[in-house]
Amino acid sequence: MADWKNLDTLASYKKLCEVKKTDLKAEINGENGAKRVREYSVPMAAGLKYNYAAKAVDDDVLSALSDLAKEAQLKEKFEELYNGAVINTGEKRMVLHHLTRGQLGKDVIADDVNKRDFYLNEVKRIEEFANDVHSGKIVNGAGEKFTTVVQIGIGGSDLGPRAMYLALENWAKKNGCFKMEAKFISNVDPDDASAVLDSIDLAHSIFILVSKSGTTLETLTNQSFVIHALKKAGLKSSNHMIAVTSKTSPLAESAEYMRAFFMDDYIGGRYSSTSGVGGAVLSLAFGPEVFKRFLDGAGEADKTAAIDDPLKNPAMLDALIGVYERNVLGYGSTAVLPYSQALSRFPAHLQQLDMESNGKSVNRDNEPVSYVTGPVIFGEPGTNGQHSFYQLLHQGTDIIPLQFIGFKESQLKNDVVIEDSKSQKKLCANVAAQIVAFAGGKDNENKNKNFEGNRPSSIIIGDELNPESLGALLSHYENKVMFQGFLWNVNSFDQEGVQLGNVLAKRVLAHDTEGALTEYAKLFEI
Amino acid sequence: MADWKNLDTLASYKKLCEVKKTDLKAEINGENGAKRVREYSVPMAAGLKYNYAAKAVDDDVLSALSDLAKEAQLKEKFEELYNGAVINTGEKRMVLHHLTRGQLGKDVIADDVNKRDFYLNEVKRIEEFANDVHSGKIVNGAGEKFTTVVQIGIGGSDLGPRAMYLALENWAKKNGCFKMEAKFISNVDPDDASAVLDSIDLAHSIFILVSKSGTTLETLTNQSFVIHALKKAGLKSSNHMIAVTSKTSPLAESAEYMRAFFMDDYIGGRYSSTSGVGGAVLSLAFGPEVFKRFLDGAGEADKTAAIDDPLKNPAMLDALIGVYERNVLGYGSTAVLPYSQALSRFPAHLQQLDMESNGKSVNRDNEPVSYVTGPVIFGEPGTNGQHSFYQLLHQGTDIIPLQFIGFKESQLKNDVVIEDSKSQKKLCANVAAQIVAFAGGKDNENKNKNFEGNRPSSIIIGDELNPESLGALLSHYENKVMFQGFLWNVNSFDQEGVQLGNVLAKRVLAHDTEGALTEYAKLFEI
Repeated sequence: MADWKNLDTLASYKKLCEVKKTDLKAEINGENGAKRVREYSVPMAAGLKYNYAAKAVDDDVLSALSDLAKEAQLKEKFEELYNGAVINTGEKRMVLHHLTRGQLGKDVIADDVNKRDFYLNEVKRIEEFANDVHSGKIVNGAGEKFTTVVQIGIGGSDLGPRAMYLALENWAKKNGCFKMEAKFISNVDPDDASAVLDSIDLAHSIFILVSKSGTTLETLTNQSFVIHALKKAGLKSSNHMIAVTSKTSPLAESAEYMRAFFMDDYIGGRYSSTSGVGGAVLSLAFGPEVFKRFLDGAGEADKTAAIDDPLKNPAMLDALIGVYERNVLGYGSTAVLPYSQALSRFPAHLQQLDMESNGKSVNRDNEPVSYVTGPVIFGEPGTNGQHSFYQLLHQGTDIIPLQFIGFKESQLKNDVVIEDSKSQKKLCANVAAQIVAFAGGKDNENKNKNFEGNRPSSIIIGDELNPESLGALLSHYENKVMFQGFLWNVNSFDQEGVQLGNVLAKRVLAHDTEGALTEYAKLFEI
Repeated sequence: MADWKNLDTLASYKKLCEVKKTDLKAEINGENGAKRVREYSVPMAAGLKYNYAAKAVDDDVLSALSDLAKEAQLKEKFEELYNGAVINTGEKRMVLHHLTRGQLGKDVIADDVNKRDFYLNEVKRIEEFANDVHSGKIVNGAGEKFTTVVQIGIGGSDLGPRAMYLALENWAKKNGCFKMEAKFISNVDPDDASAVLDSIDLAHSIFILVSKSGTTLETLTNQSFVIHALKKAGLKSSNHMIAVTSKTSPLAESAEYMRAFFMDDYIGGRYSSTSGVGGAVLSLAFGPEVFKRFLDGAGEADKTAAIDDPLKNPAMLDALIGVYERNVLGYGSTAVLPYSQALSRFPAHLQQLDMESNGKSVNRDNEPVSYVTGPVIFGEPGTNGQHSFYQLLHQGTDIIPLQFIGFKESQLKNDVVIEDSKSQKKLCANVAAQIVAFAGGKDNENKNKNFEGNRPSSIIIGDELNPESLGALLSHYENKVMFQGFLWNVNSFDQEGVQLGNVLAKRVLAHDTEGALTEYAKLFEI
């Protein structure tokens, strides 16, 4: 059994705090700068690389981080997790999302079934369903093929699948495997559902309702919206709706649904993109084969997260450097900056994944911790961000660590040469330039044009954003967040912080309020 | 002439630091909680209200903030700005975006013209052009009407106009003034332009190229993309392209363009949504009348920003509370949380507006300041965010000030009753509940379910998101950012921090690199 201890009780953490800080600016601009870029690099799955040459670390810091990983038993904790220990202490649940894409350890038996088999079987059921939809075996009431799929879900049932869909939409079109357009409804704001419903051909649309419990307010509300719209159009909901839910949910047996696919309590919403939550919509949109390749990429990346040596384990190393930046160097937020328009919503997914997992003030034993935990995560694609918030990143008073992502090739392969270079080359040149500009800076006597440098960044770089590399990217961040949770000794798999607002919202709707809350409700004429 | 001084040299700032901190949790939960909500409210333009009852302020703090506003001469500095002083000290330029929507002070003459007249004239030219497009007087080469407008721009030429378009798209559809669909191309990533071009009917599309200088790399690259696509389709670019640019730019006289509309150096990109940069696309998409109503809302809000009393001036008060939170209470970031799906990209616009304006380390005289300036800005619409990063906002180790935005009514007015309430009511109940949950918290012996409270928020609340209220909202934030820049004594109107990356990117493309930069370029095979 691993020993779960608070970060600040570890001898290696105290030692890490004492290690001489790295002068990143001097390192990057110095004669060893090129060597750093060549050597501070770790291979990842699917041909990706994690390069951390522009992070404020050197061999002494890395050695201390490696010691920290060992004392914190990161590897052992991950082993416990994938072997089925109850890692989600708050909700007393196992954490099994890795089993949706491979098996790293022992068979995990729960609810009287082998969970790997259970997840594989659901993927198979989704595959058969998707194939039948694509082939025309499953059709609408008029015997016509479906052309559009609409996912109804919120939070983890929305952000991950939506980001993944956008990431692969152009790739699928280019590579001849685009089957159906996907749309997403999430917000309880009625304008969200209305606008999506107005934009689609209802008679040829399949709706996927995603709610593990079958009780999520927003999702049930939007379910009613859709059922109402279908009825109004004279369409039967059981010809158009499928559910992704748990076996015990009210949706599992509802007559409104053509089919239900199952997930369970061992996969948290924000970790569910590789389960049926992502699987149904991605298999319908791009075909089951693409979804399998996505799972393969994620599964390969999980294997690299099990590597012994912390300095050769990309997710663990990324996690360690992040905790060093957060707790030792004192930086409060992290920007995720993909140089890929297809990853436009990937930062929003990571924002949930990271902030909901590690935005905690108590440890696994519900005792307050006396150090900072998860940072603020934000980001937009480059080069767009360069013309927006990069000003603050370069010259603001706070240092914000950066995580770049870039690919050598575009997805659509449609490009033009302007001033002797293609757009994709310009895109790549920009990310390379930004890394060095942030870390190395540039002195100028005019202090308004001075760049102090010393602003740390890493980059994950790949050949092309495709199903495998996307799966690997997703898994990398899931595992990074998990390792950081281990280091902070928090439970990264519950979200008690979302409850109070829900309780109070219900009271507002029931007019069961007093004091300030009554007045706020009045402002909205409730 | 106003006296420009660093924040930490002001006696009222030192006094503000000494004022007893407000116990927000006790205030909101206490017997005066309801009274606070009723009284800590300031009317804004277009029927909006700024309510700050859940901010960590009380009458003593407010009085100190009011003194700070006076000693910092915020009102006088704004007067100087709108009367044409050279407020953008770095680039030695006036700051005239307010003149696009009204005139608060004297006539401002520059480049031998009255600038208000100049901006009005461009709006008039755009109006005539848009009317001619809508009526079919201006048509494509085959004599057919245009159906789609595509804006090509990046940063301020993209984020603001795109956010405004999305904010009004459903409203316009509902209110019978939707004329043409708009799309946007921004990124130098070739997949951005390719995907948009693949999604439109080229022969019936008008492209608006927006670049003040006519030299923005991304925009010129995407211009070539579009010209190439038009040629390939046998279409003449001068039948399909218009420019919004400065009179001295190469685009102003280019034979590739059907028409050029003009802006000038006195309007920064991030402040240009009310100029032709937003005007062309919004007038084409929704008709000139809608754009005028949007300008009216912004103009009305500008008037409220000129109100003497800092506690009755919503933008000034918002700015003061923000600086108090940043510099006195020490909070590093701010979340913008619109409970309106239509405002999905408004936080991304504010991220640029705020972080590019005030992410500075030197004052107007290019001397380093010894206090923190602009915070990190991020946000997503509610209730989506509730199922994502709110966990950290409620229970994370850092306090993040929040800015809610909400409307009593939806835009499309299409709603369903579920469990006795409409979706719009649920949306409003949620934002009311969140405000009280964040500020008031809730004690629980299980520390994992404990809510500490004391997490400050404000809300801007309105009846409906429409052209007037959107204009007022936009102007509110522009003026807030301006006042914060005055308080920090920084130049909020230049962006020298974006230059170094551009210089290095050009060197990468020219293979004129050494050391680490050469190695980073190699990673991308450049």
